[in-house]
Amino acid sequence: MEARHAVLFEPVSIGPKTLPNRFYQVPHASGFGSARPRAQAAFRAIKAEGGWGGVCVEYAPVSPDSDETPAIAADIWDNRDARALGLAAEAIHAHGALAGLELYHGGASSPNGGSRTVRLAPSQLTSGVQRGGLAKEMDTADIARIQRNWVQAAQWARDVGFDIVYVYGAHGYLMTQFLSAYANRRTDGYGGSLANRGRFWLETLAAVREAVGSDCAIATRIAVHGDCGVPGAEGLPGIHADDMLTLVKMADDLVDLWDVIVGSWPEDSGTSRYFPEGHERPWAHRMREATAKPVVAVGRYTSPDLMAEVIRSGAVDLIGSARQAIADPFLPRKVAEGRLDEIRECTGSNMCILREETFNHIGCVQNATAGEEYRRGWHPESFPAPADSGRPVLIVGAGPAGMECAVVLGRRGFTAVHLVEAEPEIGGRLRWTRRLPTLGDWGRIIDWRAVQLAKLPGVKVITGRRLAAADVLDYGADLVVLATGSSWRGDGAQPGYPDPMPGADPALPYVLTPEQVCAGKRPPGRRVIVYDTDGYYVASGVAELLAADGFEVTIVTTFAVLSPVSDETLEGDMLRAHLHRAGIAVQHATTITGIGAGSVTGQCRHGEPWSAACDGVVLVTQQVSQDGLYTELAGDGAALAAAGISGLYRIGDAVAPRMISEAIFDGHRLAREIDERDPGQPAPYRREGADPR
Amino acid sequence: MEARHAVLFEPVSIGPKTLPNRFYQVPHASGFGSARPRAQAAFRAIKAEGGWGGVCVEYAPVSPDSDETPAIAADIWDNRDARALGLAAEAIHAHGALAGLELYHGGASSPNGGSRTVRLAPSQLTSGVQRGGLAKEMDTADIARIQRNWVQAAQWARDVGFDIVYVYGAHGYLMTQFLSAYANRRTDGYGGSLANRGRFWLETLAAVREAVGSDCAIATRIAVHGDCGVPGAEGLPGIHADDMLTLVKMADDLVDLWDVIVGSWPEDSGTSRYFPEGHERPWAHRMREATAKPVVAVGRYTSPDLMAEVIRSGAVDLIGSARQAIADPFLPRKVAEGRLDEIRECTGSNMCILREETFNHIGCVQNATAGEEYRRGWHPESFPAPADSGRPVLIVGAGPAGMECAVVLGRRGFTAVHLVEAEPEIGGRLRWTRRLPTLGDWGRIIDWRAVQLAKLPGVKVITGRRLAAADVLDYGADLVVLATGSSWRGDGAQPGYPDPMPGADPALPYVLTPEQVCAGKRPPGRRVIVYDTDGYYVASGVAELLAADGFEVTIVTTFAVLSPVSDETLEGDMLRAHLHRAGIAVQHATTITGIGAGSVTGQCRHGEPWSAACDGVVLVTQQVSQDGLYTELAGDGAALAAAGISGLYRIGDAVAPRMISEAIFDGHRLAREIDERDPGQPAPYRREGADPR
Repeated sequence: MEARHAVLFEPVSIGPKTLPNRFYQVPHASGFGSARPRAQAAFRAIKAEGGWGGVCVEYAPVSPDSDETPAIAADIWDNRDARALGLAAEAIHAHGALAGLELYHGGASSPNGGSRTVRLAPSQLTSGVQRGGLAKEMDTADIARIQRNWVQAAQWARDVGFDIVYVYGAHGYLMTQFLSAYANRRTDGYGGSLANRGRFWLETLAAVREAVGSDCAIATRIAVHGDCGVPGAEGLPGIHADDMLTLVKMADDLVDLWDVIVGSWPEDSGTSRYFPEGHERPWAHRMREATAKPVVAVGRYTSPDLMAEVIRSGAVDLIGSARQAIADPFLPRKVAEGRLDEIRECTGSNMCILREETFNHIGCVQNATAGEEYRRGWHPESFPAPADSGRPVLIVGAGPAGMECAVVLGRRGFTAVHLVEAEPEIGGRLRWTRRLPTLGDWGRIIDWRAVQLAKLPGVKVITGRRLAAADVLDYGADLVVLATGSSWRGDGAQPGYPDPMPGADPALPYVLTPEQVCAGKRPPGRRVIVYDTDGYYVASGVAELLAADGFEVTIVTTFAVLSPVSDETLEGDMLRAHLHRAGIAVQHATTITGIGAGSVTGQCRHGEPWSAACDGVVLVTQQVSQDGLYTELAGDGAALAAAGISGLYRIGDAVAPRMISEAIFDGHRLAREIDERDPGQPAPYRREGADPR
Repeated sequence: MEARHAVLFEPVSIGPKTLPNRFYQVPHASGFGSARPRAQAAFRAIKAEGGWGGVCVEYAPVSPDSDETPAIAADIWDNRDARALGLAAEAIHAHGALAGLELYHGGASSPNGGSRTVRLAPSQLTSGVQRGGLAKEMDTADIARIQRNWVQAAQWARDVGFDIVYVYGAHGYLMTQFLSAYANRRTDGYGGSLANRGRFWLETLAAVREAVGSDCAIATRIAVHGDCGVPGAEGLPGIHADDMLTLVKMADDLVDLWDVIVGSWPEDSGTSRYFPEGHERPWAHRMREATAKPVVAVGRYTSPDLMAEVIRSGAVDLIGSARQAIADPFLPRKVAEGRLDEIRECTGSNMCILREETFNHIGCVQNATAGEEYRRGWHPESFPAPADSGRPVLIVGAGPAGMECAVVLGRRGFTAVHLVEAEPEIGGRLRWTRRLPTLGDWGRIIDWRAVQLAKLPGVKVITGRRLAAADVLDYGADLVVLATGSSWRGDGAQPGYPDPMPGADPALPYVLTPEQVCAGKRPPGRRVIVYDTDGYYVASGVAELLAADGFEVTIVTTFAVLSPVSDETLEGDMLRAHLHRAGIAVQHATTITGIGAGSVTGQCRHGEPWSAACDGVVLVTQQVSQDGLYTELAGDGAALAAAGISGLYRIGDAVAPRMISEAIFDGHRLAREIDERDPGQPAPYRREGADPR
């Protein structure tokens, strides 16, 4: 271990418990909840095994009044739920960490589609998050009941082994709805003054402490900077930092651990596109004005040096992590063992959150094993040795899927893996993606793999060599994996229009693909249209690149909002404001169906004809697999047999263009299963459900 | 039974099986799948009990390549899944009906977020339904594998007792992707000519028939009218009716039951706003050109007379139903017993589909028990008798919640229920909603309850009597239920802006609430703005009403698309086209923050100042509970005690304004539980999940 990191490994007392070190996995969603208890337990246990001294389960609704269906939360409504969650506590303890449970109530934010109960809130208000109805203004019986639920849930949590129980006071959820003068319009003792608005939270803290405080540490999550300025977003305005610090002082005796965030979720879980590492530091530091109790704060910390510096500054006591602990559950151990170059850094792209927002179980672009610990038996640092490690494997293409496949094969102990890339550098489409404005940290996907590949004796990386089918046959490989990727079509075929678009030909000076733009091609005049039917980062990235070069850019998109996928990574509002400030215009709900010299034509929302003058158009319409090599090889089984190739596989975008996370997952999976009976097909995975008998 | 309905009760042979009558519950989603097998079984069993001769479970993906997460489908991937689904077959058989399972593959439409496998399709295409990646062009090994999966699933289905197995060939799913010249761009034997495009479907039918055809009836669902003209929607263009009939002839020997739909889901499950009862009849009738095998067709049939006429016409053999069977599982029995006035007609509002689209279990605006058969033990026609039926109950307010509560109390056998309404008619907000253009069928919510209330000896309906708190105290009731509803705020408070809007005062001639418009108030000039922050039917309904009166109407909405909730009921595209044709303009993504005489002011998408001239503005911004009576009564416990009132409850919008379906659910629930220990709180419901031990 580097001496400068030693401070990270000091134990920290929180109430009646002691954390073994300063690495703390804060509560965050997994999609497993209490309904999939074994997947939950395995997912959390890996982090404890990786060295995180405190490991928390996600938000745990204390009552059916906070039913998060279709999201799967850690409901703790009865004894069976508690026993299910207890599996996680047990699994975390097995590795010497403390286990935390974030008891929670969503108030007006809870959809309650499963329970079909009315939503609760301090006042009758429309949630910015949930449509379809207003909330009930809680009466004092409701308040008392929710507090009883909270105490009961805390007792259950203690009984099944949790060391830390939360009174969740942050983001835009029930406690914050009470704290916020914006959302809380009550005229009774729970509204009005700061003390009154804080009463529900303080009373709940006191009741939970009274019930379990001698057995468990009492944690609370709060937003120091609660005024995010976006009415109706997940963060609620109406709580100012100074007020919050006053409340912290009022609650300090009741709290063993302060878990500090900023109030707006898109800022709190800010992506690397718009927030640097440690961006929440100023707010966390203000906590020291109000408390001497242990403080944990997040901020997408990925660097152990910065983590140690933050601790030494005295502002916080624990390094909180959600995303970095997903990307690399073994970060603490790697720091402890001085294996710093093995740390798999979070890219800050929020694929984890995209999966949550689409109601899927957790996933990670960097760590394909995240969420698959129980489901597929995958471990992020442990790989099954092959029966025959000497089989020569040729991987063609070193993009996301190919790099990942090679790393996993190397870690499994394969000794004769060749990763052959046609371009002078590895990285595939990430080579140009990382050079788009704001997307630099996505390059960590390449960087980590490049470092690991260099360390793996069984893997040889060869760049600048383009293999034809005959080369593959002659290569001497037993197993061949084609990871030849995809490219953007320049012919204007697009969702809903499978045929080429009249006039779309990227050989023309005024028709461009994203790759061409990144390689330096520019339109012959100032006015350029970026046409987006993709809905994620490429169109905005290319538009920003061109705007920075002085072009007058309009994004024309079929979507009603620009880049809808970015809403699922929490970036949408920031992205759109950012492009607006950059002077990039947007034409919504419009389809381009023809390109001419100097103009494009198409139709708007109701089919009305539409056209615009422009000097060039970039087509961010649809990708196409580069699968020619596969087709040629797969079509000649005799040649494969004669060449001694016993297995031919495709991975990543060469199969179908998709998210980078899914291409990496695909490469990882194949490498894990390449010596199973039918490696082309994923092995069955374990599902948790009700027993039919 | 009426003689004219006798034809509906004739048995019908399908392959090796015989349906006891012509009532057939076609496959439709429930949200229970194979993961919640007891809820699934109970939900389907009720329909069999109610007299449906054939009862099908929903879409059953045959492989993890068709993983519908986060929707819960009837996955049949292994033996455990099959046993789970077998509970439904068993429960259906207990009532003498045949059980069907709709084996399915979504192809490019399947999100595969749980399995994380690549999507499959005949060609690499973007699904209009799923973002985030293209599909893999299936190779012949994929085709053979999916066919093996289908056969295996059919064998499992047979083994656990299903009588009918499907080869799902309709909507925009895998089989249709093959059938469609639009989606199928293959150059091998599975693409090109009609016979080639039909090969995958025909081969699968043959293989399934070979495997289970002597034990089970083989059904297939197809779209005769497959060209919906909306590229990328759930229905795929590229299949014309004549082609489809050719395919029907080719497949006829392999099929025991043809399940006919139209190709576009928004048309197939068309709402009453845009499609009349029996709207699919012309297409179903064309089937007779191609087959003499039994045909089942849907069309939101609610009238037994029309059902009988359709059968007698010879065009179809079975009346298919999804929505009417949800609204009234006992329709067949009621027809058989001549209890026609007890049939609870489907409103065609698609609340069932809204719940599916939001990944919830099934629900129904008309039938609050739908989906709650196992979860809460509710039966649509059977109600627990109270311990003390003579307790006098006063319900104040005969809107959706109050009417439902009174009906359920009456059916439970309460003998002294008074339902007192201030207005001259019952119905609450539905009184004016049903008079908005296209919303007439929503009036069935009132009509059915009005008829039942008139038949219930224990319930007295009193209209035109407005009760003050003193009247309630003097009424002589033991239990008091307040269902006083909600109204639209005229003060301009809106999501994100909890304070009144400057200039918003409905006493002014140019500021209007929806209720005022429905009651006849009109702006003082021609140009009117309808301001919508609600996102569902009210703004469009009021706009259409005013446009029909000759006003020049613009809807200003904070949403990026008009009426986003209507997308969840499948109406969005039709609604927007309909309004566009009616000459109603729309200003999107705009917030109004001030009203003056002759203009409104606010801001657009990026906060830019915005204003518009107008002669009047209708505020469809936010509702508010009419809870004054409750507050007054609840605040004086001594007076309640003195009046002998042992229970005071609130239901519906008086608690919190919400969807009509949820208000009805609330009234139903209270009536079921009013004599339990704590009726104000819903009793716990049963959840199915993994066992922790």
